[in-house]
Amino acid sequence: MLGLFFSAGMCSLERFGSILVLRLTGETEHRFSPALCSQLRQHIATAAASDARALVTTNDGKYFSNGLDLEWTKPEPQTRVPYILRELERLVLDLLKLNMPTYAAICGHAAAGGLLFAMAHDHRIMRKDRGFLYSAAVDINFVLPPGSSALLRAKMAPKVFKDMILQGVKYTGIMANEVGLVDSLQEDSAATLKEALDQASKFVERPWEKAAYAGLRLSMYPELIERLERESSSGGFITV
Amino acid sequence: MLGLFFSAGMCSLERFGSILVLRLTGETEHRFSPALCSQLRQHIATAAASDARALVTTNDGKYFSNGLDLEWTKPEPQTRVPYILRELERLVLDLLKLNMPTYAAICGHAAAGGLLFAMAHDHRIMRKDRGFLYSAAVDINFVLPPGSSALLRAKMAPKVFKDMILQGVKYTGIMANEVGLVDSLQEDSAATLKEALDQASKFVERPWEKAAYAGLRLSMYPELIERLERESSSGGFITV
Amino acid sequence: MLGLFFSAGMCSLERFGSILVLRLTGETEHRFSPALCSQLRQHIATAAASDARALVTTNDGKYFSNGLDLEWTKPEPQTRVPYILRELERLVLDLLKLNMPTYAAICGHAAAGGLLFAMAHDHRIMRKDRGFLYSAAVDINFVLPPGSSALLRAKMAPKVFKDMILQGVKYTGIMANEVGLVDSLQEDSAATLKEALDQASKFVERPWEKAAYAGLRLSMYPELIERLERESSSGGFITV
Amino acid sequence: MLGLFFSAGMCSLERFGSILVLRLTGETEHRFSPALCSQLRQHIATAAASDARALVTTNDGKYFSNGLDLEWTKPEPQTRVPYILRELERLVLDLLKLNMPTYAAICGHAAAGGLLFAMAHDHRIMRKDRGFLYSAAVDINFVLPPGSSALLRAKMAPKVFKDMILQGVKYTGIMANEVGLVDSLQEDSAATLKEALDQASKFVERPWEKAAYAGLRLSMYPELIERLERESSSGGFITV
Amino acid sequence: MLGLFFSAGMCSLERFGSILVLRLTGETEHRFSPALCSQLRQHIATAAASDARALVTTNDGKYFSNGLDLEWTKPEPQTRVPYILRELERLVLDLLKLNMPTYAAICGHAAAGGLLFAMAHDHRIMRKDRGFLYSAAVDINFVLPPGSSALLRAKMAPKVFKDMILQGVKYTGIMANEVGLVDSLQEDSAATLKEALDQASKFVERPWEKAAYAGLRLSMYPELIERLERESSSGGFITV
Amino acid sequence: MLGLFFSAGMCSLERFGSILVLRLTGETEHRFSPALCSQLRQHIATAAASDARALVTTNDGKYFSNGLDLEWTKPEPQTRVPYILRELERLVLDLLKLNMPTYAAICGHAAAGGLLFAMAHDHRIMRKDRGFLYSAAVDINFVLPPGSSALLRAKMAPKVFKDMILQGVKYTGIMANEVGLVDSLQEDSAATLKEALDQASKFVERPWEKAAYAGLRLSMYPELIERLERESSSGGFITV
Repeated sequence: MLGLFFSAGMCSLERFGSILVLRLTGETEHRFSPALCSQLRQHIATAAASDARALVTTNDGKYFSNGLDLEWTKPEPQTRVPYILRELERLVLDLLKLNMPTYAAICGHAAAGGLLFAMAHDHRIMRKDRGFLYSAAVDINFVLPPGSSALLRAKMAPKVFKDMILQGVKYTGIMANEVGLVDSLQEDSAATLKEALDQASKFVERPWEKAAYAGLRLSMYPELIERLERESSSGGFITV
Repeated sequence: MLGLFFSAGMCSLERFGSILVLRLTGETEHRFSPALCSQLRQHIATAAASDARALVTTNDGKYFSNGLDLEWTKPEPQTRVPYILRELERLVLDLLKLNMPTYAAICGHAAAGGLLFAMAHDHRIMRKDRGFLYSAAVDINFVLPPGSSALLRAKMAPKVFKDMILQGVKYTGIMANEVGLVDSLQEDSAATLKEALDQASKFVERPWEKAAYAGLRLSMYPELIERLERESSSGGFITV
Repeated sequence: MLGLFFSAGMCSLERFGSILVLRLTGETEHRFSPALCSQLRQHIATAAASDARALVTTNDGKYFSNGLDLEWTKPEPQTRVPYILRELERLVLDLLKLNMPTYAAICGHAAAGGLLFAMAHDHRIMRKDRGFLYSAAVDINFVLPPGSSALLRAKMAPKVFKDMILQGVKYTGIMANEVGLVDSLQEDSAATLKEALDQASKFVERPWEKAAYAGLRLSMYPELIERLERESSSGGFITV
Repeated sequence: MLGLFFSAGMCSLERFGSILVLRLTGETEHRFSPALCSQLRQHIATAAASDARALVTTNDGKYFSNGLDLEWTKPEPQTRVPYILRELERLVLDLLKLNMPTYAAICGHAAAGGLLFAMAHDHRIMRKDRGFLYSAAVDINFVLPPGSSALLRAKMAPKVFKDMILQGVKYTGIMANEVGLVDSLQEDSAATLKEALDQASKFVERPWEKAAYAGLRLSMYPELIERLERESSSGGFITV
Repeated sequence: MLGLFFSAGMCSLERFGSILVLRLTGETEHRFSPALCSQLRQHIATAAASDARALVTTNDGKYFSNGLDLEWTKPEPQTRVPYILRELERLVLDLLKLNMPTYAAICGHAAAGGLLFAMAHDHRIMRKDRGFLYSAAVDINFVLPPGSSALLRAKMAPKVFKDMILQGVKYTGIMANEVGLVDSLQEDSAATLKEALDQASKFVERPWEKAAYAGLRLSMYPELIERLERESSSGGFITV
Repeated sequence: MLGLFFSAGMCSLERFGSILVLRLTGETEHRFSPALCSQLRQHIATAAASDARALVTTNDGKYFSNGLDLEWTKPEPQTRVPYILRELERLVLDLLKLNMPTYAAICGHAAAGGLLFAMAHDHRIMRKDRGFLYSAAVDINFVLPPGSSALLRAKMAPKVFKDMILQGVKYTGIMANEVGLVDSLQEDSAATLKEALDQASKFVERPWEKAAYAGLRLSMYPELIERLERESSSGGFITV
């Protein structure tokens, strides 16, 4: 059974049985612009409202995601960088609140904002031979918002956290697997996606309720979620 | 003794003995744009570095300040409204951390962001016959950032706080004086400024140290200041 | 224009133009049992989903509400008192999150849990001649949950807060009006309800959006709301 | 009925029926030294373990208390000022946790640390004609520890709080009564103590339990108490 | 030297030199009912008041503990499940505050509430061949209270935490040892208890004071302890 | 290129290219007295104001540091122990806020306060054959201030944290390397310092800005830094 929800644009959502695959499409760097964030958030909202029981995110090409879309921010960086960061944090929150398990099948570089997006998933499967997990922050003189730092802190051992942020270490799949950043290592992109689908397939058979799953995840990271909500919800006009 | 520091543009800083007067100049509404925020923050930085012992803020014309500069935000409201809010919260923080007492001599309307700016001062003197203290938020469908709400909560009795925010009550000078929003009521603009200068003159004679004064204020509002710092300091690039 | 939504049981929800009236019906003490909490929460959910623009809560008889239903808790107080407290805090949260202004037209005693329910509204109108605002806690050796204390602290001046809780002072309408616990004082029940409807009628004419109103209230009391959510959301089974 | 527990030294504890009177004895300024703090804390511990149902604190002479004992701190101010502040905050905590209502019968100046001690009580009765409530901090360049600021903030309206701390306003009895800093105003020291005893006598008749009373107060000020405990409990050696 | 304190019922407390052994007795699943929680809390109170210097908890039969007593909660799950959870969190708090080191000699399954109880100890020794550490939450649609989640988060590496909660991984002794969930692995129940006693025996020889030990543990987990205290202490009646 | 800034006394600051070496000089135990804390803080302030891009801290002799100077605290331990703890926490804060990476080249024992100082650095290089990382707290009945505990918790895996604090385990270089307490292990003191300089040399070549580096570190540990600032900043006199 397979159903195609939406495939125009920068990402697609496909259904395989009770599993949804969210794919960053095309050979681009999958950088976060308002358009990409908006499409991703719509797909996740579709997932939340569906009766599917797992979400697997993956990518075409050489990049899972290479971070913020600096082309888009360039004309007015002072206002646009904070804006797109906030959009990215809302996307992270969507994943942290989603009522089903989330798997990142990382088939290429996950850098900067792309690292955040990868770490916002519950589980990570990575290619052995290609791609880095890399927080570019220190190399591009970018100060992470505290909510984004808090996401990384909640998901990494203390030494990995500081090597990732303060040293800008590029974790290959093998390194990432050794320090617990990923859950499984596979030969190539096809095997990476297959492993994610296999793990999801096994898990969706178990009798958990989707509301309970979402509730459990909320209870695990209350300070993180509260901080992201505070950061990403500050003032603005509401119009009809 | 009088010294003029800076008067070009939208505001000026003048010195009268050991008191600095920060004036929102001209017959405009003194709305907060990046330019006005930047000039105000530079004046406050000048004050902080000077040997003056009090700051009195006042205004020309009919408005103390009428809030955000919506002309400036209009071309790209989604990115510019959060940006200017953050600038305004940084300005509020500058006042909350300034190493001398701050007096707002409010000679006209203080609405929306103008209310925040007025409430960020330690003391308020207001005209009896003209001007309102008014949080326009409910009438313009504007959701205050939590840090701005926290500023108002820290400075108002609970009933005044909810009438101000949820009812959008317009407090005249007389009403404001009755509920403790202002410290003194005067006949006109000249008397309002004079009263602020008189209060400041008396206080600067006392033997307090400027570092102790700043430390005391910080110890009074730690949660407020922490919240404003978190909100206004999230990520961005730092370049030379 | 008038529409009757639901009137069976312990409370009813009626519509007058764009105002909903939530009435605690009958000559009882309107004590909080699971049944009453459930009915009230259903009415508030109905209100939230409707296109109405204000909610007025009022009561028949001599009691706005006299607190927890101790008849219901008596057979197993150790498990049932915490349970009903949690239900009451959820009801308070529903009001704090409702997307429209809330008015309590208090026509009789509001004691213990009834005081909490009254204080959870945005505005309060009270009879001059009858009824007390009274936290019975100290007189019945009842320790308020911290979230309930936090609600009262957020809505009262410090001196009123301690006289209310630690002295068990019974505030008559006149006393309550003097210290800012209520917004208006009326002669009798009919005038009390009429005043609430009049205030609401005026306010609903203004062009605020319901989502913005809800967002504003959330930004005013973030610590209170977070505390109530933590307290009222702890673990349990989720079943289909 | 009267019983004398302890009267040597700087303070005494006497029993009148079910009321204990803690008296700062002698015509001194009752400044807080380790010796005075220790004696006061012992008396409060005695009170906590007794079957008495109220504590009234009062003073001989012209001072309720004039603050820290600067004679004691003078030889080594850098280590001794923080030490005695911590002792004072522990004393404040003892009062905030005491299992009975506390009344300060303030018969003279309550300044600096003496203001903190007075405000740590549940209720305050003051002489009309003599004595000030006065936070000397701004005049002596003393930065309040955040826990002490938090005590004052929890007990005062926002405007009073800032006038007290940032202006160093000296509140006479009449001023203090107007702004809710005290609960009753009396002609002289005898009437002040008598009023405190009368209020206590009426209250002890009511059927509250001491554990419930203590629990109620804890639930009212959780952030304040947590902050004071954090501040006053940091590291040290524990020896047999 | 050996002394038997209490052995009736579901658990016993025995003394071996300066070590106390708390045993979950009988071939049952040692599920947490009010009776079992109450007996365990009494034993821990006895331990706290004794001059013993270590506590070793162990079990008869195949289960360390299999979680809440669902037979007891079944007649009224809505009120009884939150009640017993609160009792369990109080038991966890008792261990976190106990004035001596705590060792869990885990001779069988520690599942759901049983996992929480095991993780509340300072150290864990486990059988190699039998028993799982297993948070059943996801499989029984049970949302952990935030305080219980916080206990697990404080004691596990981030990857183990999410595999434990979100995947419901069953950790055998060997797996648990590899990821640092346990401190030592032994062949059978006798060796497991012996190893715990040996570790305790060595440690009790060192010259630490019991009050300092308790203070140290409190300083290690302040947010966890504060959260558990808030969750488990909400309102109720206090009667003589 | 080499420049000597300051070498008198207990520690020196030397410059090697863009790297500063802070050396605890002499064959002593390098215990923290007011004098040593003051000298270290002055050196770190010098570093912060310089154009250097890395700080390497190392030691002469057999001790990196053996903790507080108990000779200095002995005459008045009740006031002096809290005082020197606060000084040490300020020193830790200086390192956590320094605008360049910090490396501890640990050539000997780092015990008690010395462990805190070592863990306050970003990276640690240690001798293989000599020296322990050891929190003496449990063995000397010393209760860590919560801010100091929070530093250790932020830098260690949960199991290491509890073995370090509650067991007083002495981690040799080899043990420390296995559990991620140090980043590199070297044969002797010369090699240890050389490795730190080599790591720093490589890192200073990269194009990071110093303000961004400091901002990144602040965003990683906001609760830790806030807690340390609260603990170390409580009241005191400010004099000219």
